[in-house]
Amino acid sequence: MSGLIGLDWGTSSLRAFRFDGAGAIAETRARPWGIRHLPAGGYDAALADITAGWPTLPRLACGMVGSRGGWHEMPYLDLPADAAQLGRALGKLRAADGMDVHLVPGLRDPRGPDVMRGEETQLLGALALRPALAAAATFIQPGTHSKWAVVQGGAVTGFRTLMTGELFAVLRKHSILGGDTPAADDADAFARGVAAARDSGAAGAFARLFSARALMLDGTLASASVPDYLSGLLIGEEFRAALADGLARRDTPLQLIGEPALCERYRRAAALFGIELPPAIEDAAARGLWQLATQAGLVNDIPEESHAC
Amino acid sequence: MSGLIGLDWGTSSLRAFRFDGAGAIAETRARPWGIRHLPAGGYDAALADITAGWPTLPRLACGMVGSRGGWHEMPYLDLPADAAQLGRALGKLRAADGMDVHLVPGLRDPRGPDVMRGEETQLLGALALRPALAAAATFIQPGTHSKWAVVQGGAVTGFRTLMTGELFAVLRKHSILGGDTPAADDADAFARGVAAARDSGAAGAFARLFSARALMLDGTLASASVPDYLSGLLIGEEFRAALADGLARRDTPLQLIGEPALCERYRRAAALFGIELPPAIEDAAARGLWQLATQAGLVNDIPEESHAC
Repeated sequence: MSGLIGLDWGTSSLRAFRFDGAGAIAETRARPWGIRHLPAGGYDAALADITAGWPTLPRLACGMVGSRGGWHEMPYLDLPADAAQLGRALGKLRAADGMDVHLVPGLRDPRGPDVMRGEETQLLGALALRPALAAAATFIQPGTHSKWAVVQGGAVTGFRTLMTGELFAVLRKHSILGGDTPAADDADAFARGVAAARDSGAAGAFARLFSARALMLDGTLASASVPDYLSGLLIGEEFRAALADGLARRDTPLQLIGEPALCERYRRAAALFGIELPPAIEDAAARGLWQLATQAGLVNDIPEESHAC
Repeated sequence: MSGLIGLDWGTSSLRAFRFDGAGAIAETRARPWGIRHLPAGGYDAALADITAGWPTLPRLACGMVGSRGGWHEMPYLDLPADAAQLGRALGKLRAADGMDVHLVPGLRDPRGPDVMRGEETQLLGALALRPALAAAATFIQPGTHSKWAVVQGGAVTGFRTLMTGELFAVLRKHSILGGDTPAADDADAFARGVAAARDSGAAGAFARLFSARALMLDGTLASASVPDYLSGLLIGEEFRAALADGLARRDTPLQLIGEPALCERYRRAAALFGIELPPAIEDAAARGLWQLATQAGLVNDIPEESHAC
């Protein structure tokens, strides 16, 4: 039996993919067992549960499972890095069931410095799904810690982390920009926030954060619309900053990777910068895990005896 | 008996100043009774306690006490605004003791829009203490919500609120930039944060927030030094943004108003931008309350009979 078990193991969730020998996903499972929320029995118990009943196959995991404080710390691989280099840099640990779990290293951009874990696998997956982008593209990976990554000649050559999602959450929960009013779904307020960031010039949207409050006090932004305005301001700032320092360029493809609803916000923001983004790539992590396993020779690892003549 | 009772009544604290007839401060009292932390009996009880034993004098209050959700909402006065205009725009409420409390309105910059309450009184006090700055200066008022205010020809002509203090607090308490390590006092880390903001170009320091984490993971920033780095990054961003859009200019005096320890951080940050700032002006609110009371004719209000001949 050939194939692969791929694990996308982050801070707050765990997903497992069972691939057949041709790389098609035969089954996907998900558990709320990120490395900060493990079940009793820890990593080994989580792994046994999520792969219960699956055949014995090579296992490859990406994400925070390989971080300091994860199951087994994997060093970061410095940029530039492509699929072949990442494939050669896999590590492994021996699980309690006596078999290995291979691990994908994170990437490090020494110029920041900046780091990613898990997004590198999504990037490889996205490149496998859209090979035309390998020559030159910037990928946007929205999330708690959004990544903007530049790919040139098939290799990741630079990236930056923006704390957009986390900043939005802490400002809403713990700052004066929060409030008791349930959030409205206000596309106009979102667009207004994006425009405020876009038009903030070199000063940037940091200096405009308080506008979310001032507009509300001014009676021109409903309290229930503050969340959408703030979301627009922070996402708009990602685009403003990326365009300001060349991480994104109007003459180079921009491609979203991630969850559709969140990516749709980025598409709306991009439109206000005059940039039309194609639909987001979903499930890039699974595709990247298969790519890396193939690069590393973990799959199609036909037992010797079948070659016997 | 002539004189004034001045009240600087903010969100988290209340200070009262008893002025003699010449405007000298005869006594200062402080209570932790901001408008969100009132004692039993509310505003009236707080006022009675903090002025206990003082003679009956005109009372003038500035700050969040005049906000929506305060004791009595005062509308904002639109810019440009000088001491005379603010003096004419005072309001008042009748306290439970049967006497008035006069209130200073906040200011509104319609271009933001942006608003301030309390800082306008500090600005007038600073101008009274440093009259040479009235022609043209930018004042920096560090705090939970820092203000950068431009004064021209004796009037406040523009200002901006930066959520620096609040952002620092919520990121430390509630984000991945927090941590269990007690904060070191690391002036080098602070300077490094300031430099990161200064050198972030048009992209700005929003895009560098995660560097506080990445440098720590990289082993080049001690966990205990993250707070000082973050403080430098956020304060540095105030200077970068203000210089980027002309709110501060290298050919115009910059003057700090506020608490010495916090202002000292701003002086250190300014030095890394090549700007030498004079020492901060303290107790500007008290001086501003006296100025406004004088403008409004609340003091030296000699009873008619003393003029009788």
